[in-house]
Amino acid sequence: MIIEGEDMANGKQITDIQTQYFHVPLSEQLGDARHGIHSHFELVTVTIVQQNGQQGVGYTYTGGIGGRAICHMIEHDLKPCLLGKEASCIEKLWEDMVWKIHYVGRGGIASFAISAIDIALWDLRGRSFDEPLWKLLGGNASSTKAYAGGIDLNFSEEKLLRNVQGYLDKGFHAVKIKLGQERLAEDIERVAAVRELIGPECVFMVDANMKWTVETAVKAARLMQPYNIYWLEEPTIPDDYDGFRRIGSEGGLPLAAGENFHTVYEFVNMITRGQIDFPQPDASNIGGITGWLKVANLAYAYNLPVCTHGMQELHVSLMAAMPNASYLEVHSFPIDQYTKRPLVIRDGRAIAPDKPGTGVEFDWELLKPYQETF
Amino acid sequence: MIIEGEDMANGKQITDIQTQYFHVPLSEQLGDARHGIHSHFELVTVTIVQQNGQQGVGYTYTGGIGGRAICHMIEHDLKPCLLGKEASCIEKLWEDMVWKIHYVGRGGIASFAISAIDIALWDLRGRSFDEPLWKLLGGNASSTKAYAGGIDLNFSEEKLLRNVQGYLDKGFHAVKIKLGQERLAEDIERVAAVRELIGPECVFMVDANMKWTVETAVKAARLMQPYNIYWLEEPTIPDDYDGFRRIGSEGGLPLAAGENFHTVYEFVNMITRGQIDFPQPDASNIGGITGWLKVANLAYAYNLPVCTHGMQELHVSLMAAMPNASYLEVHSFPIDQYTKRPLVIRDGRAIAPDKPGTGVEFDWELLKPYQETF
Repeated sequence: MIIEGEDMANGKQITDIQTQYFHVPLSEQLGDARHGIHSHFELVTVTIVQQNGQQGVGYTYTGGIGGRAICHMIEHDLKPCLLGKEASCIEKLWEDMVWKIHYVGRGGIASFAISAIDIALWDLRGRSFDEPLWKLLGGNASSTKAYAGGIDLNFSEEKLLRNVQGYLDKGFHAVKIKLGQERLAEDIERVAAVRELIGPECVFMVDANMKWTVETAVKAARLMQPYNIYWLEEPTIPDDYDGFRRIGSEGGLPLAAGENFHTVYEFVNMITRGQIDFPQPDASNIGGITGWLKVANLAYAYNLPVCTHGMQELHVSLMAAMPNASYLEVHSFPIDQYTKRPLVIRDGRAIAPDKPGTGVEFDWELLKPYQETF
Repeated sequence: MIIEGEDMANGKQITDIQTQYFHVPLSEQLGDARHGIHSHFELVTVTIVQQNGQQGVGYTYTGGIGGRAICHMIEHDLKPCLLGKEASCIEKLWEDMVWKIHYVGRGGIASFAISAIDIALWDLRGRSFDEPLWKLLGGNASSTKAYAGGIDLNFSEEKLLRNVQGYLDKGFHAVKIKLGQERLAEDIERVAAVRELIGPECVFMVDANMKWTVETAVKAARLMQPYNIYWLEEPTIPDDYDGFRRIGSEGGLPLAAGENFHTVYEFVNMITRGQIDFPQPDASNIGGITGWLKVANLAYAYNLPVCTHGMQELHVSLMAAMPNASYLEVHSFPIDQYTKRPLVIRDGRAIAPDKPGTGVEFDWELLKPYQETF
C-alpha cells in the first residue's frame, strides 16, 4: 500500500502489518492453582513495515486461550486505523488505539492486541535511532536482578525440589514456587522444604494464582512467617482491592500482583487501595512498552519498585532501564528459546541485549512447525 | 456430535454451537463524544443445540468494533469447554467460562463472548420450562418504564429537537440526549432547548460518554441545575471512582454509568467508591443474563435501582422482572427491528414479550443481507 502526499517525506508511514499465530508446545505439563494445566502457549507476532522498508517486530503471548481473538482484533479493528499513519508517534497511536476499541476494550483481548503492535513500534523506534531498548528508555543499567518462576503446583515435592535445584544450578539467587494445593498444610510443607534446600540467603517468592479467599490468604501468610518470604503473589482475585489490603496488613507478608491488571487504572487502584508492595506489569497485556512504562512510572511516583511477569527476553531491557527495578521474572514459558538470543543470566542477573530495537529477534525456522492459521 | 453414556438421560447435553456475524448499517450516521460517528453495528448470534433437538438463541452487539474477535473467542475458546455439558446448569457453565478465559478476560471481548452464550442458555431454560423470561426471573411486572436514548451529538440543534419530538410522538415520557460538544456553552444551550420542547414533566437524562475531566463535569453539572436533569451519564472515564464521587457531590446531579463496566466487581467499586445513583449493566457485555442479574441484585442490596444500556428487546424482560427497576433504555441501535417482535411501547412503558424463552426471535431473512464471514 502506497500513501501519497507530503506526509511521505520521512518514509515512516506504516505501509503493512503482518500478523502470525503460533501454538507452541511446552516440554512438560505445567500447573497452577487457577489456570490448571498448561500444555502449550500461544504466541502472536506482529511485523510492522514502514514506507522506507524498515521493519519492527512485536508480539504477545497467552497461556493457551484467546490467541486467535487477539489476531482478529489486530487484523480487523487495529490495522485499519494504523495503515498510513507515521510510525514514530507511538504514544499518539497508542492513545488512538485505546479509544478506538474502548467499548469492547479496557483490558482483556484488546490489551494483548495493542501490546503486540506497540512493541513492534518500539522495535522500529529503536532501530531508527540505532539504539538498544535499555538505553532508549533511560539506561539505568545494562542488566537487572532476575528470579526463576516455576509453574510447578502439579509437581510432586521431590520433583519440585529437583526443579528448584535446577534454577540454582543455572545461577539464580532467587526462586518462586506456586501455592494453592487442596490442603494448605501441604503448601506450607513445600515452602519449608524449598527454604531448606535453597538456604537462608536465597530470595524466595510464592504465588497462589488467586486461589484463596481473604481469610485463607491471611492464615497462609501467617503460617509462612518463619520462611522469610520475599513476596506473596496474587493471594486472591485481582478485583478485591480491600481484600489485598487486609491480607497485607493482617498476614504480614509483602504482596505482589499485576499479570491480571490490563490498564494503568487497575494499578492505581491496587497500589492506593490494595497497598501492594510489588506491582508486576506485563508488557504483553498492559498495552506494550507504552503501557508498561506508564505503570513503571506510577510505581516510581508511589515510591515502589517495579517488577514483571513473563516475556523475560523483552522485559530484561525494560527493567535494566529503570531506576526502580526490583526482580525480573524468568517465566516458565520459554519464548526466549525461540529467539536468536535466549536470555543471558550471569551471576543471578539478566543481561539486556545490545542490538538496536527490542533485541528480540525470532528464529522463524524454529517457530515454523508451530504456526497455524487463525 | 453425539455424547454417549448415562449423562444423555435428560437430553440436555449441548451438541452444537453455531456462531453468526452480521454487520448491520444504521439508517443515518449517529455520533457521541467519545466513540465518534457510528455507521453500523455488529451483531453476533449464537445458537445452542441440545441433544434433544431444542435450541436457544443468544447474541451480543458492538458499535462496529471487535465483533470478529468475539466470534473467534466463542468458536476457539468457549465452544470446546461447553460441548457435551448439560445446558441446564447455566450458572455453573458461566463460572467455568469466566475462569477458563480469565487470563485474557476479566472484561473486554471475553465478556461479550460469554454474554452471547449465556443468553442462549437462558433462552433454552425458558423454552424448557415453557415460561417467558420476565416470569422466570421473578415476575415483578409484565412491563417497565422506558426512555428513548438518542445518539445525536452530531445533529444540528434543529435536527436534535425534531428527533426528540419524534420520541414524544412515539409515546415516550422520558428522553436522553448526548453531551460533549467542543464548547460547553453549546451543550447547555441544547439542554435548555430540549427542556423547553419537552415541557417540565418529561423525564430528561443527559450523557457525556466519558468526554470530560472531573473539573469540567462538575462545572457542567452545576450549569445544568436549572433544567431538572434526571441523571448525568458517564461524565468521565469509568475507571475514575473518586472522580465520579466528586462529580456527584460537587456537581449536584444524580449520576449513571455501566455500559463500560464488564465485571460485577467494577460495579461494586463504582457503587461503593463512585457513589453512582443509577447502575446500568448491559446483558450483552456484563456476561449475559447471569452477569446482569448479579449486578441487579447488587444494586438491590445497595438500595439502588437498576437500569440498562442498549438491547431493549431483551432488557425489557429483565427490567420487568425486577422490583428495583428504574428506566429501560430504548437505544438507537435498532436490533429489535430485526426480530419478529420489535419492542412494544404503550403509554411510555415497554411491554415484555410473553413467549417462552427470551422472546427475542431474529428475523433471519431480514438479517441475511448483512451476514459476513468472520
